[in-house]
Amino acid sequence: MDGLDLWHWLFGRPLKFSQAQQEEITTSEGLAALSLDALSSVAYGPEAIASVLIVAGAGALPLMMPITWAIVGLLAILVFSYSQVIEAYPNGGGAFVVSRDNLGIGASRLAAAALVVDYVLTVAVSIAAGIAALTSAFPSLLPYTVPLCLALLALITYLNLRGVGESARAFLLPALIFIVGLGGVIASGMIHLAAQPALFAKPPVAAQSVGTLLILRAFAAGCSALTGVEAIANGVPLFRPPRQLRAKRTEWLLGFILGGMLLGLSFLMVHFHLRPQPNETMLSQVMGQAVGKGWIYYTVSLSVTAVLGLAANTSFGGLPLLASVLARHHELPHLFAIRGDRLVYDYGILWLAVSSGLLLVVSRGDTFAMIPLYAIGVFTGFTLSQAGMVMHWRRLRPPGWTWKAAINGLGALLTGVATLVFVFSKFTEGAWLVAVTIPALIFLFYRIRRYYTKVGQILGVGETPPPVAIPSPPRVIVPFSGLTRVTARALEQGLAMSPDVVAVTVLFEPEADEVGAELQRQWAEWSPPARLVILRSQYHSVVRPILRFVESLEHLSSQRVVVLIPEVIPTRFGQSWLHNQIAMNLLTALRQRADVVVGIVPMHLETDE
Amino acid sequence: MDGLDLWHWLFGRPLKFSQAQQEEITTSEGLAALSLDALSSVAYGPEAIASVLIVAGAGALPLMMPITWAIVGLLAILVFSYSQVIEAYPNGGGAFVVSRDNLGIGASRLAAAALVVDYVLTVAVSIAAGIAALTSAFPSLLPYTVPLCLALLALITYLNLRGVGESARAFLLPALIFIVGLGGVIASGMIHLAAQPALFAKPPVAAQSVGTLLILRAFAAGCSALTGVEAIANGVPLFRPPRQLRAKRTEWLLGFILGGMLLGLSFLMVHFHLRPQPNETMLSQVMGQAVGKGWIYYTVSLSVTAVLGLAANTSFGGLPLLASVLARHHELPHLFAIRGDRLVYDYGILWLAVSSGLLLVVSRGDTFAMIPLYAIGVFTGFTLSQAGMVMHWRRLRPPGWTWKAAINGLGALLTGVATLVFVFSKFTEGAWLVAVTIPALIFLFYRIRRYYTKVGQILGVGETPPPVAIPSPPRVIVPFSGLTRVTARALEQGLAMSPDVVAVTVLFEPEADEVGAELQRQWAEWSPPARLVILRSQYHSVVRPILRFVESLEHLSSQRVVVLIPEVIPTRFGQSWLHNQIAMNLLTALRQRADVVVGIVPMHLETDE
Repeated sequence: MDGLDLWHWLFGRPLKFSQAQQEEITTSEGLAALSLDALSSVAYGPEAIASVLIVAGAGALPLMMPITWAIVGLLAILVFSYSQVIEAYPNGGGAFVVSRDNLGIGASRLAAAALVVDYVLTVAVSIAAGIAALTSAFPSLLPYTVPLCLALLALITYLNLRGVGESARAFLLPALIFIVGLGGVIASGMIHLAAQPALFAKPPVAAQSVGTLLILRAFAAGCSALTGVEAIANGVPLFRPPRQLRAKRTEWLLGFILGGMLLGLSFLMVHFHLRPQPNETMLSQVMGQAVGKGWIYYTVSLSVTAVLGLAANTSFGGLPLLASVLARHHELPHLFAIRGDRLVYDYGILWLAVSSGLLLVVSRGDTFAMIPLYAIGVFTGFTLSQAGMVMHWRRLRPPGWTWKAAINGLGALLTGVATLVFVFSKFTEGAWLVAVTIPALIFLFYRIRRYYTKVGQILGVGETPPPVAIPSPPRVIVPFSGLTRVTARALEQGLAMSPDVVAVTVLFEPEADEVGAELQRQWAEWSPPARLVILRSQYHSVVRPILRFVESLEHLSSQRVVVLIPEVIPTRFGQSWLHNQIAMNLLTALRQRADVVVGIVPMHLETDE
Repeated sequence: MDGLDLWHWLFGRPLKFSQAQQEEITTSEGLAALSLDALSSVAYGPEAIASVLIVAGAGALPLMMPITWAIVGLLAILVFSYSQVIEAYPNGGGAFVVSRDNLGIGASRLAAAALVVDYVLTVAVSIAAGIAALTSAFPSLLPYTVPLCLALLALITYLNLRGVGESARAFLLPALIFIVGLGGVIASGMIHLAAQPALFAKPPVAAQSVGTLLILRAFAAGCSALTGVEAIANGVPLFRPPRQLRAKRTEWLLGFILGGMLLGLSFLMVHFHLRPQPNETMLSQVMGQAVGKGWIYYTVSLSVTAVLGLAANTSFGGLPLLASVLARHHELPHLFAIRGDRLVYDYGILWLAVSSGLLLVVSRGDTFAMIPLYAIGVFTGFTLSQAGMVMHWRRLRPPGWTWKAAINGLGALLTGVATLVFVFSKFTEGAWLVAVTIPALIFLFYRIRRYYTKVGQILGVGETPPPVAIPSPPRVIVPFSGLTRVTARALEQGLAMSPDVVAVTVLFEPEADEVGAELQRQWAEWSPPARLVILRSQYHSVVRPILRFVESLEHLSSQRVVVLIPEVIPTRFGQSWLHNQIAMNLLTALRQRADVVVGIVPMHLETDE
């Protein structure tokens, strides 16, 4: 098995375009493939609220219920708005597409920057929460939180590099266990409560001073549960026809399930008098209270980890695609638009893995350390796509457009206000990082675009190139280190191109005279049809004198210069250590510094070693 | 400040050959520059004996004295032998040179392998012992042992890459403080003892069962104190004339000081009833008892750390030089014979730093974990150089040669027996690692030599190369990705070489027809004097179809093929991320796989960005 075989075994054989997956999904499959990011956030959303409220004491925790109701109200508006996006953009309309079409390049850059931040955070938060579900169920794993997070990240990255990250069917079983399991847990918890009227009664709010700012911050933290409700609108083309109908149905289904779960879990948390614990998630506590720590608890816990892992996976579908679109619009390096052998965007996948990995290491895998960063990006996206839709309806004016525009307008207003609230209320908790990153990304997009525009002008992209003349033969320079067959071959290749061939070698100073005289004698004896130039060097460097010689030739005459570097190339990879790397070093230096054609004349060795 | 300036600031401007240091040293400077490896080993040698004996209980520790006497006896023989080596090899005679001259290539490979192992161990052991001296004096540093070891290693590596590692004068002050300081400590300790006759009396050996094997192992561990006595013989050319006289004088001086210190320290350790402690070295304990923990204690402790660091530094002088000699004899990759800008052998220095760094990490900076590995390599070298000297005298037969041969013969016999004892007595403690590494290195040297010999034959090194004919012009292939000025330039460069120029592009399958038709139209409009070939690809890869096309050309005709790859090269390094790396990927693939000349046509961009 040679290196390439190993590579293919690890990452799969190259795929043809015709082998690209062409799945068409149904409503329930759509729920599994596109909604896990949103649904899985019930694992951390309610606890995020509690972890802010607890600052004012355990007596503030009953405030979870009204805050959750406010979040569910916002969810309803978002679901309503996004089903209109689905109707308007049958080819998929994320915040980026909608704002590019309706709000111009500035807004689309803002949307793109917010989305990039969001995708990275989704991966990091989902993985951290997934591992938290695991360590809650198996506390002995707790000391290995960060390594476990990185291992899960590596697994997801690997699967995506293989290009098997988006098989909707693989999502079905864990999604089903998750939804049915959590539904059962909530139902069972309610029955428990009903049996104990003392618990069922509404607990009073008992904190002395719960300020407005604290409630706003708790609301903002809870809004992390709304991430991902836009994913279905992005993925309309994946659905089986009638596409838009199925997609809208999926969106509404998601809204109902997510809203129900949020309300149910918050209710149980308040009435069971639970509070955040360092070593066990509140979801795990609810499950323990509702169904006891038996096999149901462990099965649902594992499905929570699996579903959060899959939620991270959906970002791996989203970010590389967004980056490739940006790259094709010249707003990110073109590398991000290159598809690898498995037809996935390798650079985007790797970039996402590295950034979210860094975030996981810095936050030590603590979900709630990252939550404050989360909502700003998400809600910026919400605001832009809703605002874009308002412009869309104003422009097209279909029947009943005022009504549609009003719904989207209300959505834009609410999410816009929410975004501002988040920036100010959570600024010191880490939101400043996002508030710095998003403008920095926008500036980066702008600079990259300007660079590419300028390069395109210089290269004359889109124009007919200048006419090509047939020039006179170039002067060919052949650097060599000894009179061997390699040098002879390179001279012959040079003579095939031009009669004007110069062989150049570098001798080091203490012995230059002696060695030079002997070399000239051997050259005369051999007498190839080329001139010999000996460069002397005070320094122990071959590259520098040759570079200087070539540069002086460029200045002396207008004749084109070609440098042909002989190189011995062993058959086996391991043997390349046995040959010094001067040829490639020289090529790199000349290509960077000199305006000459520079080539390698390879001589492949068969040594049977 | 650009990249190159930063590099020069960090590693110094390039040096000319004429700037290489030409120091000539006196006896006392020689002691400082060449003997620190040997002298500094008093910091761990006596404790190494104690740390073996303690296995049989504290009652076995008085056996340190007779064992130390045996080691000092061996030292006397070695000093005597090496002063003969100095006489015979005025140009420096290490184990490698002496055995190459007198015992043949096999023995010289064994000597080289033993020396390589030895240099790596010297660095690791000296640094670990130096940091142990530091953490004994400042126990709060103890948790940072490994990072401190690596930091000291990095500092030494950096200084050596700058080429300032061998300034004898920098060694004088710490060496002086060390010798005078430790001498004072020993004298002061003796006075303390003399004042307490109870302590001065010889303590009885009180262990039930001190087996012969244990005593042998303790002796072997203590022999680690003898490492480095051969360094002066290696460095004869550094001395000011009369060279050999000064070198011999230095060798004898080293013998007296080292022997005296070993005996003195062992005596104090036994009579102060000291024993190995996990957090404090026995040397530090002796110093504490003899002079109290005042400023003298701290000054001498710091000088111990400094001198051990300098001892590690001497290996950085030795190994890269040895590796360069081996590389020039084709027994190691030629890379090791390349000198960097500062005229030092960068690859050897870096290799030594990495290997000894790994050893420090694996052993967690524990000196005595590495001691069992140490003696085998050292004593193999001793044995070979003594045996080589016997052959040397037999060959030359100068007046009184039998007497000289007898001394070297006795040295060879004793050190040879010692080597065997070490291999067997310490095999399970880690000596197996050395017993495996040395033969593996020898095999490596042999294989590398055989490879280079074969390559030399294939390339015709040393013969006059075959006569060079003037061939017909090549077929020039220009891969391109769009009709821009870059492509036009590359075609022009190709036409300068040959009238037969083919422009090649790759189109991906779903859109190949459409894009191809448009390209052909534009080509016809532009009409350069070259043919256009469009390759279609089922895969998302540019490199593979072009490689296959070039290979098919090679098979179809015997015409030479030149591939000229246009490449846009931005002025600033950071901008290279904005250009995809297809040109270099294509060059690498073609150079590895195809028998064609492959070149880059660079187009340097000035974008003012």
